[in-house]
Amino acid sequence: MASTAAGQVIRCRAAVAWEAGKPLVIEEVEVAPPQAMEVRIKVLFGSLCRTDVNFWEAKGQTPLFPRIFGHEAAGIVESVGEGVADLKPGDHVLPVFTGECKECRHCKSQESNMCDLLRINTDRGVMLNDGKTRFSINGKPIYHFVGTSTFSEYTVVHVGCVVKINPEAPLDKICVLSCGISTGLGATLNVAKPKKGSSVAVFGLGAVGLAAAEGARIAGASRIIGVDLNPKRFEEAKKFGVTEFVNPKDYDKPVQEVIAEMTDGGVDRSVECTGNISAMISAFECVHDGWGVAVLVGVPNKDVVFKTHPINILNGRTLKGTFFGNYKPRSDLPSVVEKYMNKELELEKFITHEVTFSEINKAFDYMLARDGLRCIIRMDG
Amino acid sequence: MASTAAGQVIRCRAAVAWEAGKPLVIEEVEVAPPQAMEVRIKVLFGSLCRTDVNFWEAKGQTPLFPRIFGHEAAGIVESVGEGVADLKPGDHVLPVFTGECKECRHCKSQESNMCDLLRINTDRGVMLNDGKTRFSINGKPIYHFVGTSTFSEYTVVHVGCVVKINPEAPLDKICVLSCGISTGLGATLNVAKPKKGSSVAVFGLGAVGLAAAEGARIAGASRIIGVDLNPKRFEEAKKFGVTEFVNPKDYDKPVQEVIAEMTDGGVDRSVECTGNISAMISAFECVHDGWGVAVLVGVPNKDVVFKTHPINILNGRTLKGTFFGNYKPRSDLPSVVEKYMNKELELEKFITHEVTFSEINKAFDYMLARDGLRCIIRMDG
Ligand SMILES: NC(=O)c1ccc[n+]([C@@H]2O[C@H](COP(=O)([O-])OP(=O)(O)OC[C@H]3O[C@@H](n4cnc5c(N)ncnc54)[C@H](O)[C@@H]3O)[C@@H](O)[C@H]2O)c1
Ligand SMILES: NC(=O)c1ccc[n+]([C@@H]2O[C@H](COP(=O)([O-])OP(=O)(O)OC[C@H]3O[C@@H](n4cnc5c(N)ncnc54)[C@H](O)[C@@H]3O)[C@@H](O)[C@H]2O)c1
Ligand SMILES: [Zn+2]
Ligand SMILES: [Zn+2]
Ligand SMILES: [Zn+2]
Ligand SMILES: [Zn+2]
Repeated sequence: MASTAAGQVIRCRAAVAWEAGKPLVIEEVEVAPPQAMEVRIKVLFGSLCRTDVNFWEAKGQTPLFPRIFGHEAAGIVESVGEGVADLKPGDHVLPVFTGECKECRHCKSQESNMCDLLRINTDRGVMLNDGKTRFSINGKPIYHFVGTSTFSEYTVVHVGCVVKINPEAPLDKICVLSCGISTGLGATLNVAKPKKGSSVAVFGLGAVGLAAAEGARIAGASRIIGVDLNPKRFEEAKKFGVTEFVNPKDYDKPVQEVIAEMTDGGVDRSVECTGNISAMISAFECVHDGWGVAVLVGVPNKDVVFKTHPINILNGRTLKGTFFGNYKPRSDLPSVVEKYMNKELELEKFITHEVTFSEINKAFDYMLARDGLRCIIRMDG
Repeated sequence: MASTAAGQVIRCRAAVAWEAGKPLVIEEVEVAPPQAMEVRIKVLFGSLCRTDVNFWEAKGQTPLFPRIFGHEAAGIVESVGEGVADLKPGDHVLPVFTGECKECRHCKSQESNMCDLLRINTDRGVMLNDGKTRFSINGKPIYHFVGTSTFSEYTVVHVGCVVKINPEAPLDKICVLSCGISTGLGATLNVAKPKKGSSVAVFGLGAVGLAAAEGARIAGASRIIGVDLNPKRFEEAKKFGVTEFVNPKDYDKPVQEVIAEMTDGGVDRSVECTGNISAMISAFECVHDGWGVAVLVGVPNKDVVFKTHPINILNGRTLKGTFFGNYKPRSDLPSVVEKYMNKELELEKFITHEVTFSEINKAFDYMLARDGLRCIIRMDG
């Protein structure tokens, strides 16, 4: 199918979100051919990240429907548009929600992965080239999500958001590297940078938080304190090097005070992976004054406000935030895939469920029930 | 007098603040001998910093009166208490509002100067050893301020807050290094760390802010944008390498937007030296996403709140704060004095006024009128 369809519209199955919070519907959609600097990808495996669920629920986020969600996935290039030199049909790829144009000041900076052209944009539902969608049903446009829309058998992605990877890597495992796991891992290794022997608090023990904990373990942290409202998470978290657990609900004082008492004044590093504003504030205030560094990862609602007394800042705490763990997707992600291939990084323990594409709403149910970590979606079923 | 009075109460002149916002009164006070780990200093020169004025006005700060203010000064050791090994009568010293015990985790850390024992404490008006004051008038205690209280001919300071310096350094110049100038300089050089060729915004062009600008110039910043509400500051600021000026009052949009427009998205670094909460927020939001670092230096009022949308953090901005420019006073300040001695650092341009001790209220008038930068107070007059 791949070669014959190049330049043609492809009809295939996609899971369309027609309305906020309503089950996705598997529909036959038309997927237009890739335009200049675009790539059409045959998606083979996907998984569900909290960010999909948040924008599908559209509570505290701008609603945009009908839309095709999905941004953790792995697939194979079906065809490429004009000007695409680095990729060809058959290449194994990960689409990523934040891109790398390699030309802008961010892409040229050592410090930033916030590409001016291709950084995450949760409100845009169209492609950059013509401001239109590549998906339609009987000519009616269906919006994109963060430039990836991987809940479709075929999708069109800007070349700057497509990462060519080792073709030997198993796509049903490494698909989770295209968002959550890389994000958590990088937030710790690239941004929080805990020293050997230090203490790290991780807020939120979903896949992103547990990947952050994994990063802390790899960095040699001696104490990894997991914070979650859901005690079910604590069993799972033990597999990820988390050494202690705090459920804020068990205390009648703010969790930052609980952590300060446990750690003689605060942790050396914290990584927030909840998206909840009060967890963000606690994650900042629980780091030790003088040297503590807090890193925000969770995607906040639109109308929330981060608040703290400025003395908490003056006292020598550092506050940072990151998308995609500060990895530049095209430059850095292939080496994260290699970490998996070399067994430095275990992905299997993040994968707790598997469904076929036709059962995709089950993946949403697991996430909503906070049951397990990542649910793999097999696109061929 | 020095040697004969050791172990005795010294009667001398001090400028006592009896009430919030009322002119200081020169009184004869009793200064008790130094207790264990304390040093009695004959103050020769002082200067006035905004922090003194803020706590004297006691608007938005805990009032504590009667009190002897003053924390920028230079003098000579008169006598030392039990256990003081590193200092002896006659040593030239700078008292500093934040100390260095050399024993605690902060003092042993490379990253922090927030000594557990001796960090700045604006609410404590007594000495640590016995929880009492060393100042009295007819037996009635007069409170200390930040452990220094240099608006007195003699004062008693914890040894950990006393920095021994090169005896050849002119005390009437280097007294300004014991707070404001080191604070601003260090905030840029030690915390913001701008790269050569980068852009730096400085909020507040008082002595602290201009020292921050001086740090940016020394670091090789190519654009130094000074922000102040007071256009009078702009003339003075030209001597400090400030290349552009922004008065927030000249615009009907937030100053962070004005700066973003001037700099194609934001400055690389900002240093806030106002103490004003909205300036703190602007200083954070005006740094470039992806790599910008903002450093807070101004001392905030007790009841203010730092607020920002968390997306400003997630987008790759870093927020930090510092007291005393992250210098460890005893370890690091002697080398800052040497920078002055080697002419790498000019202090004269920060000194715009001089008064005798008996005229100390004039120094307050200058500060309140925002006239000039530092006013030297000659204790012998
Ligand atoms: N910055 C990025 O690049 C990036 C990338 C991927 C995901 N995210 C965000 O990271 C967050 C985590 O994603 P995930 O897929 O692991 O989600 P998840 O829902 O599986 O896990 C989140 C966990 O946080 C816990 N939690 C919620 N509120 C809490 C609170 N106040 N205190 C403590 N724990 C709390 C939940 O119980 C849950 O276990 C989400 O906000 C997601 O949108 C950000
Ligand atoms: N962190 C520390 O270790 C430390 C040490 C010394 C001083 N300080 C603090 O640093 C600050 C500056 O001290 P200083 O002696 O230079 O004071 P200063 O009063 O001489 O200078 C402050 C300047 O800020 C300007 N300003 C006030 N509000 C502003 C706003 N909203 N926007 C722009 N400009 C504004 C004023 O016009 C003034 O020129 C004070 O808050 C002081 O308490 C902190
Ligand atoms: Zn995600
Ligand atoms: Zn770019
Ligand atoms: Zn000061
Ligand atoms: Zn100490």
